[in-house]
Amino acid sequence: MSGGTPRAAEAVRHLADFHVGDVYELGRWEVTRLEIVEFARRYDPQPRHTAALPDSELLASGWQVAGIFMRLYVDAVVRHAAAEVSPGIDQLRWLRPVHPGDVLTGRVTVTGILPSLSRPDCGIVRQRGELADSQGRPVLRLTFYGLVRKAG
Amino acid sequence: MSGGTPRAAEAVRHLADFHVGDVYELGRWEVTRLEIVEFARRYDPQPRHTAALPDSELLASGWQVAGIFMRLYVDAVVRHAAAEVSPGIDQLRWLRPVHPGDVLTGRVTVTGILPSLSRPDCGIVRQRGELADSQGRPVLRLTFYGLVRKAG
Repeated sequence: MSGGTPRAAEAVRHLADFHVGDVYELGRWEVTRLEIVEFARRYDPQPRHTAALPDSELLASGWQVAGIFMRLYVDAVVRHAAAEVSPGIDQLRWLRPVHPGDVLTGRVTVTGILPSLSRPDCGIVRQRGELADSQGRPVLRLTFYGLVRKAG
Repeated sequence: MSGGTPRAAEAVRHLADFHVGDVYELGRWEVTRLEIVEFARRYDPQPRHTAALPDSELLASGWQVAGIFMRLYVDAVVRHAAAEVSPGIDQLRWLRPVHPGDVLTGRVTVTGILPSLSRPDCGIVRQRGELADSQGRPVLRLTFYGLVRKAG
């Protein structure tokens, strides 16, 4: 089936299926030099992200690292949930540089379930996300909000 | 000259050249269907960002909108500044959907100059950024931090 469509045999998670303290383990993503440079040429063309530097000096754009977090989160959580668009983020921190060859993985923890004022058919799921490198050192931490339908 | 290198005739802005209340007008970016789908296939593969929907229903990933903000900010500010990597973001909000054909522009306002505990050779410039669509309606608002060298 195409991306984003839950498998037929799988239940879609609605708001009541999210609970404070739930933890979702994310998949893994190997960062390549080509991907770093392609992303940065379009969205963050600073020489530290685009120049012909050795792996130890070439850095992924922080926005690309955030994008990798989103991809792993979509695959692990959003594909299986009655998710609407997100209202936003609080407190995103880039904690360590990410280089070519780094393998990132992460987790998401549900930290709050809040009412939505604009969408009474939904609730807001507050989540804390983290990505870590191959040595388990955190590279990204953020608190973000997801809008999830109550039913249907 | 290659991307990110200030033109020779132009002074590079150091920390003392940033002041609370300074406003930087950003350039413009026309969002295309191809760019929306390419970004989303890699970083945010939800059907609302990748499916063959009419322009009025196809939405850019919020992370792509943030990337467009970064690109315009790099071109308007970072290229001309003694900028180091950013520690992070506070309070990013996606305020309206972005569709193919939307032309985004924006501005950045300096809201604070703070000491850096980890980099005594730098200071932290707190900034509020905003992107708006062709009708001037805000689509993205964020508060973010930049690390800027004091000299050299």
